[in-house]
Amino acid sequence: MFPKNTWYVACTPDEFEQAPLGRKICNESIVFFRDEEGRVAAVEDFCPHRGAPLSLGFVRDGKLVCGYHGLEMSRTGHCSSMPGQRVKGFPGIKTYPVVERHGFIWVWPGDASLANPEKIPHLHWAESPDWAYGGGLYHIHCGFRLMVDNLMDLTHETYVHASSIGQPEIEEAAPKTSVNGEEVVTSRTMENIPAPPFWQAALRGNDLADDVPVDRWQICRFTPPSHVMIEVGVAHAGKGGYDAPADAKASSIVVDFITPETETSIWYFWGMARNFKPEDDQLTATIREGQGKIFAEDLDMLEAQQRNLSTYPDRQLLKLNIDGGGVQARRIIERLIAEEQATAETTLKKVGSA
Amino acid sequence: MFPKNTWYVACTPDEFEQAPLGRKICNESIVFFRDEEGRVAAVEDFCPHRGAPLSLGFVRDGKLVCGYHGLEMSRTGHCSSMPGQRVKGFPGIKTYPVVERHGFIWVWPGDASLANPEKIPHLHWAESPDWAYGGGLYHIHCGFRLMVDNLMDLTHETYVHASSIGQPEIEEAAPKTSVNGEEVVTSRTMENIPAPPFWQAALRGNDLADDVPVDRWQICRFTPPSHVMIEVGVAHAGKGGYDAPADAKASSIVVDFITPETETSIWYFWGMARNFKPEDDQLTATIREGQGKIFAEDLDMLEAQQRNLSTYPDRQLLKLNIDGGGVQARRIIERLIAEEQATAETTLKKVGSA
Amino acid sequence: MFPKNTWYVACTPDEFEQAPLGRKICNESIVFFRDEEGRVAAVEDFCPHRGAPLSLGFVRDGKLVCGYHGLEMSRTGHCSSMPGQRVKGFPGIKTYPVVERHGFIWVWPGDASLANPEKIPHLHWAESPDWAYGGGLYHIHCGFRLMVDNLMDLTHETYVHASSIGQPEIEEAAPKTSVNGEEVVTSRTMENIPAPPFWQAALRGNDLADDVPVDRWQICRFTPPSHVMIEVGVAHAGKGGYDAPADAKASSIVVDFITPETETSIWYFWGMARNFKPEDDQLTATIREGQGKIFAEDLDMLEAQQRNLSTYPDRQLLKLNIDGGGVQARRIIERLIAEEQATAETTLKKVGSA
Repeated sequence: MFPKNTWYVACTPDEFEQAPLGRKICNESIVFFRDEEGRVAAVEDFCPHRGAPLSLGFVRDGKLVCGYHGLEMSRTGHCSSMPGQRVKGFPGIKTYPVVERHGFIWVWPGDASLANPEKIPHLHWAESPDWAYGGGLYHIHCGFRLMVDNLMDLTHETYVHASSIGQPEIEEAAPKTSVNGEEVVTSRTMENIPAPPFWQAALRGNDLADDVPVDRWQICRFTPPSHVMIEVGVAHAGKGGYDAPADAKASSIVVDFITPETETSIWYFWGMARNFKPEDDQLTATIREGQGKIFAEDLDMLEAQQRNLSTYPDRQLLKLNIDGGGVQARRIIERLIAEEQATAETTLKKVGSA
Repeated sequence: MFPKNTWYVACTPDEFEQAPLGRKICNESIVFFRDEEGRVAAVEDFCPHRGAPLSLGFVRDGKLVCGYHGLEMSRTGHCSSMPGQRVKGFPGIKTYPVVERHGFIWVWPGDASLANPEKIPHLHWAESPDWAYGGGLYHIHCGFRLMVDNLMDLTHETYVHASSIGQPEIEEAAPKTSVNGEEVVTSRTMENIPAPPFWQAALRGNDLADDVPVDRWQICRFTPPSHVMIEVGVAHAGKGGYDAPADAKASSIVVDFITPETETSIWYFWGMARNFKPEDDQLTATIREGQGKIFAEDLDMLEAQQRNLSTYPDRQLLKLNIDGGGVQARRIIERLIAEEQATAETTLKKVGSA
Repeated sequence: MFPKNTWYVACTPDEFEQAPLGRKICNESIVFFRDEEGRVAAVEDFCPHRGAPLSLGFVRDGKLVCGYHGLEMSRTGHCSSMPGQRVKGFPGIKTYPVVERHGFIWVWPGDASLANPEKIPHLHWAESPDWAYGGGLYHIHCGFRLMVDNLMDLTHETYVHASSIGQPEIEEAAPKTSVNGEEVVTSRTMENIPAPPFWQAALRGNDLADDVPVDRWQICRFTPPSHVMIEVGVAHAGKGGYDAPADAKASSIVVDFITPETETSIWYFWGMARNFKPEDDQLTATIREGQGKIFAEDLDMLEAQQRNLSTYPDRQLLKLNIDGGGVQARRIIERLIAEEQATAETTLKKVGSA
């Protein structure tokens, strides 16, 4: 189960530059393309003619042409033309609310009548020239909750990412978790510690000494359905930590959009936004490569964990203080799912009594 | 579901020249080999001793020897000998009516008592020195009906085979479908059009100009259970088209035998028979290679279509005029299946009341 | 179904020298490691914290540390520590009786209260300096009964291993099977026959002529749950066969421990123990390599047989004289399973009435 009446990151614009993109999201097979005005469109990936995936076709004049027999599909889900056919009575296919914003394509896989673009999260770093962003996409065979857990409990860095961002001091610093409406915040600060290799490099990238003690922070912010933004950084020790002046710290935002594909697989959009040297594309590429390697270290663990949990679905897991962020995030997720189901039942009853 | 009381192409003789051939056909695991007289034999691929596949064994003096413990199986499905054993009381295994004809091995996967070799289709091109044949085999993960649809609606050539046999004029020419007993014929003619690359090459191969307008025809003939012979060709425009004299045209028969392996996979025997330059083996090889590449273009589409349809089994598809051939062919297929089931039930009732 | 209240070979010590070893045995996911005293330990491969496999972690001071968030597991199945946590109330995980003996790790996957190390079979060749042993491990997708059948009916050597240990004389010599309590013995002797290639090499390895007639013997001994020790050898003909003096024969013990992974897959520990030239490590390596190649010849057949039997689970197989060893072994296996179930039910009733 996943919330469906919500915005998920579906893809990035480059993914359907050359050809339409077929992607399953929340068990819905969707194809993304650009219409004649250059706007992104999202329709079912199923040709109403003979069931071929439309994503195997091509785009012509803003219409999606089926690669099997040439049925031409518009962004409205209606067949606009087909060689030798009168298409007026053709059945339509499902369309999905879709918005291009902040460098991502956002899709609403649930009830289209409820979709409100205002609810797409505002990403200040995506719109400001003071910030640079680099990121990537991993396809992982684990349920989306496991990835949320992973990101809301950074204790795992000590073990999974020991050679880059992990350090023993992480697990020695107890995290604090708070819930503000639908936002869950888990934060941890470490004072007067050595900087691990990734942050040494970031300090150097920001023209700062990398061999002096630092204060380090991690502030994980979950918002539904499954976005986790993590403010991370180090400052030279005693300069104010998180609040230190810009010339005494290196900081950034770890960006995580987790989009369910099925119950046990996800599209994981990861990246890093930084507000130092934003014009330095080489630095962006270097950080992106390093982050990609670090985040790849999680894949085996997450997939093995999923296999274990699928084998023992009824087994109770521990909920420690370090799991507080994940536990609270799941509560919000489950509440949203329950609300969706209640709404759906109410609607059914209304229809039934009408 | 597939018709089982019918002849299917099982394999070609070269496939069991070196060793017995195990192949699943209509969900029956069958092993093919040659007996002591050189006749093809077909028995269950299951050794009655310990269940090993007999196809992992070898042929000795026309008997199939199990490669595990040496049980020797005759073409009648009875164990003929086994080292150190008295085999008289050994249980037999199922045999399948099988005939070698027209360069193919034909098998009857259903009720053996109904098998009549007279019902194997006559392939005049396979027996005449005026014709040459070249072909191949693809294993495809789609139901056999989808391949019949594919071949009875050549509109797809415009899209799937755009660089070889496809051209826009195909979809502009409406096809005509007729049903004659168990035969379905869908035909299409295009006049005064440019020849696409494949036919330009064929014209050259037949020592004809390739840069002049042509009349083109496609006559698809479905016969049960799932054979599709397609008369195809081009003639220099105005010379009579299909009826043009031999020195003004290049024509051939696209040969398609579709043999179900399971509900969602097939053995697809494809080839081309031509009645020009039949002695030119190099031309046969060239055509075979070209056709193989063209037909391989269908595989991804068919398998993706099958996945979509398996996901949405109850979804209704369109039945347009271009689909007429496939629709009529399916009607015949479903009628044959229903007749087989009715026969089987009658037989059961008779047995029950006896 | 498999006996679970019994000792199986789980692995060899080298397999968890560098890192903990995760292995599924009788459907139980188990991780093996060494504790602080160097003793082997076996616990469930499931971290009670978040369900990650503990086998992805590492060993520190004899404790198994989860590679995700650092929970530290002791050999008792209790969490010994976790950074920043009070672990006293943490739930434990299952432990398995485990013993290192005779060069193997033995595990008891069933009711731990019944485990008695005295019941681990005594392997005299593993403890004596007069013997050398070399072996390996294959993972095979077949049920463990099929491997027992394979080893208790060496007729298959004639077919599966024709170029090494097979020879027609094997199938001409009828085997004799006897049952002594829980041991099944199937033996076969062949007199005055040529030595097949493997045994020619063994004769040479033992400084004996390889081109003279030999007497050959095979004595297969099954003991529960699924161990098969096979005394094999050749002696120069007329010297007494099995009882010939050491300087007239080459003999060894084929060692087979078959450990179920699931109903249709096994861990197959194979090897050979010999009592000639035990100090010759090069000879051990040569024999091991040869045996490995020979035993690999069985894999395809066993896996294909399993697929056939899974497709037709209700089909009756033949039980010939050559199958006597396997048939008797299976009877003992099924009796042990039935006894285990009866014990489990009695225990449940007692608990219920208490």
